[in-house]
Amino acid sequence: MKFELDISKTFNFINEKELTNLEPVIKVYHDFINSKQGVGNDFLGWSNLPVEYNEDEFERIKILADKIKNKCDVLVNIGIGGSYLGAKAAIELFSHSFFDLLKGDKKNGVKVIFAGNNMSSKYLSDLMDAIEDKDVCLNVISKSGTTTEPAIAFRILKDFIERKYGLQESKNRIFITTDKEKGTLKSLADKEGYETFVIPDDVGGRYSVLTAVGLLPMAASGIDITSVMEGARDAYDEFSKIYCEDSSLNICYKYAAVRNSLYRKGKLIEVLSNFEPSFQYFGEWWKQLFGESEGKDGKGIFPVSCNFSTDLHSMGQYIQDGLRNFFETFINVAKSEKIIEIGEIEGNIDGLNFLKGKNLHYVNSKAFLGTLYAHYKGNVPCIVLNMPEVSERAFGYLIYFFEKACAMSGFLLGVNPFDQPGVENYKNNMFSLLGKPGYAKLEFNE
Amino acid sequence: MKFELDISKTFNFINEKELTNLEPVIKVYHDFINSKQGVGNDFLGWSNLPVEYNEDEFERIKILADKIKNKCDVLVNIGIGGSYLGAKAAIELFSHSFFDLLKGDKKNGVKVIFAGNNMSSKYLSDLMDAIEDKDVCLNVISKSGTTTEPAIAFRILKDFIERKYGLQESKNRIFITTDKEKGTLKSLADKEGYETFVIPDDVGGRYSVLTAVGLLPMAASGIDITSVMEGARDAYDEFSKIYCEDSSLNICYKYAAVRNSLYRKGKLIEVLSNFEPSFQYFGEWWKQLFGESEGKDGKGIFPVSCNFSTDLHSMGQYIQDGLRNFFETFINVAKSEKIIEIGEIEGNIDGLNFLKGKNLHYVNSKAFLGTLYAHYKGNVPCIVLNMPEVSERAFGYLIYFFEKACAMSGFLLGVNPFDQPGVENYKNNMFSLLGKPGYAKLEFNE
Repeated sequence: MKFELDISKTFNFINEKELTNLEPVIKVYHDFINSKQGVGNDFLGWSNLPVEYNEDEFERIKILADKIKNKCDVLVNIGIGGSYLGAKAAIELFSHSFFDLLKGDKKNGVKVIFAGNNMSSKYLSDLMDAIEDKDVCLNVISKSGTTTEPAIAFRILKDFIERKYGLQESKNRIFITTDKEKGTLKSLADKEGYETFVIPDDVGGRYSVLTAVGLLPMAASGIDITSVMEGARDAYDEFSKIYCEDSSLNICYKYAAVRNSLYRKGKLIEVLSNFEPSFQYFGEWWKQLFGESEGKDGKGIFPVSCNFSTDLHSMGQYIQDGLRNFFETFINVAKSEKIIEIGEIEGNIDGLNFLKGKNLHYVNSKAFLGTLYAHYKGNVPCIVLNMPEVSERAFGYLIYFFEKACAMSGFLLGVNPFDQPGVENYKNNMFSLLGKPGYAKLEFNE
Repeated sequence: MKFELDISKTFNFINEKELTNLEPVIKVYHDFINSKQGVGNDFLGWSNLPVEYNEDEFERIKILADKIKNKCDVLVNIGIGGSYLGAKAAIELFSHSFFDLLKGDKKNGVKVIFAGNNMSSKYLSDLMDAIEDKDVCLNVISKSGTTTEPAIAFRILKDFIERKYGLQESKNRIFITTDKEKGTLKSLADKEGYETFVIPDDVGGRYSVLTAVGLLPMAASGIDITSVMEGARDAYDEFSKIYCEDSSLNICYKYAAVRNSLYRKGKLIEVLSNFEPSFQYFGEWWKQLFGESEGKDGKGIFPVSCNFSTDLHSMGQYIQDGLRNFFETFINVAKSEKIIEIGEIEGNIDGLNFLKGKNLHYVNSKAFLGTLYAHYKGNVPCIVLNMPEVSERAFGYLIYFFEKACAMSGFLLGVNPFDQPGVENYKNNMFSLLGKPGYAKLEFNE
């Protein structure tokens, strides 16, 4: 299983010398990451996760996931931001595209519903309506236990579960992933006897998918998390050295260097494109990872994702022909596990009989190549990450690839890639407006 | 029912004089639209749709929708770009958030699945797997009948339906929306006796939601399309005059003028933000409308959408604190039809007991205000479109508001808002790579 990075279609915009010029800096930051020095060094726990995770907890996750699968129809997963996007991305990638329409015996895992990631009355009210007659468990993910969205959802859904099952049985149906000792959720779990899992102190939300945060809902949905960790370990090993055997930069740092070079000459938006609808939420996970890591101090590449060929019929015109201030990174999957053969149609009415006998994935792969060439010819710098297949192991690799690339990118940009000071602003205003004790009245002239 | 536009939080970046300076130009383009002159004038059919639509066809749509609701579990809607996004946006907005999990008797319309909007083998194979034991109808939407994605899906799903129901019964289960007389789909429908609906000659794909393209799947899903058209008519009437009674620009042209002024001073990205998850695909529809209309000739505002408060925990950091080259347009919905009251929790462990007895929508509305203030203080120009409620009538208004604003915006930018010359490039390359007869071998040095 080999990932490859093709940066040749950026060489109209940058030259290899620019990348070479970045190498001394890359070495500095590589050491920062490895020796856990420098800015943000108390949030570098993600970098060793593939080799240093709690194996006892990992086994507990698998055991609980099996229990959930046997016991429940629905696992409601309460979390926002990094506490939901990684699991959501994985579940979209590996689940049946129409899971809810399948008969029970065709389902290979529990239905995972995400809540506490918005404050919509419609959403939460519809959710309770839909799970009324289902067998339900609740998984709450929050470091502090006080983030507004998940805290409100937990209040309401805890009450729902307790009314449905009684206080005692509810204790077997509520699971908590939170700080190992601090925080209100931890205290509550200890008091009530909920099973708990740990968000390590040195792993930030957007870097937490390979902890219990991501792994428990993934496992419950039927994903083989052992393979996910193996894939992450492949990437960990590969990127522990700055250079490949042929003395070129490893592909993780090469990606970081190229996107940083492009940004420095006015390519201010990055479009992450894929050709499989199941990648939609991978794009959302990636947007948080890069947007929250780089978007600060008045700078940063604006992250955008596109799902092709779908969005070639919406965003395609702009990408081909609009303002040239962005670059594009394609995730190209070589193989598809499903075969659909294109048949003939009488009278060749759509002019596509020349495709007779071709596999649909073959056509899709030509759509990718055709798009790559078209956008490159349209003066878009294009990076291609070739992914061998959509498997759990490849997913684990992909996660770690982007995590480490993002850390390096943030350092190259000159920011702390691991903080998110701007996220508090709306919360503070909201609390002021809601009259939360201790919050001053909001001073704002309408 | 009154929509309002608040542009006061752009006045740190533009001044009212700039808007006044645009008025003479707005008058010219208002006449272009009304008298169907100027560039793109053969695609202005959308502008009169609220008052000049085919009433017989409209009745046929409602009758067929009822028939589909009685006959089917699933309507597979084949179309891409403008042939799916409008209906998808509406259905997401008005359907139960967990429609698939509801028992049959709680469902108020047919399940609409979209196909032909990608070329994923997994998606199409999963789709056929999921509908194998369902009662299925097929709705095909394509002006030419030769667009690759829907044409391939139709080949495969036509075969699926014919094997499932036989040739004769399939004729009652396949519906076609296409050109009124030309094209291969029209010929096929006439030959086979499929019921057909018309995409008017002078209505482009991204402007087609108020034709049978959008209305048939919307009606089948249970949406009251009569109210949708009434709302569009409200907007049509309001925006038929350039000025309001108080002599200010109508809000549609005001929105166009403000965004254009912001673009001219370096605000190159527009973020459309909402606070209801059901608006996610409305954002996608809007991105096609504006991206495809404006993104050409090397210019255009890059359209992006965010769903809050969800994305405040992913894109929020960038928006608060990243590069200041974008502006934000909020859709703020005043009312929610669902009431969820927040309860108390023992020991106030999350510190939110001060919210006891408050309605969740009230909290969400403060999250909106808190976000608006935070982003504005963070030097983001903010436009607010206040929407009174999520109703069919309000949806119709919203559609027409953005359609007309987009036309005006494109004119102000100096482009033809109704063409999409760049969409062909990837298709031509793809056909070359696939060896389609008549296409030259692709010349491209890897």
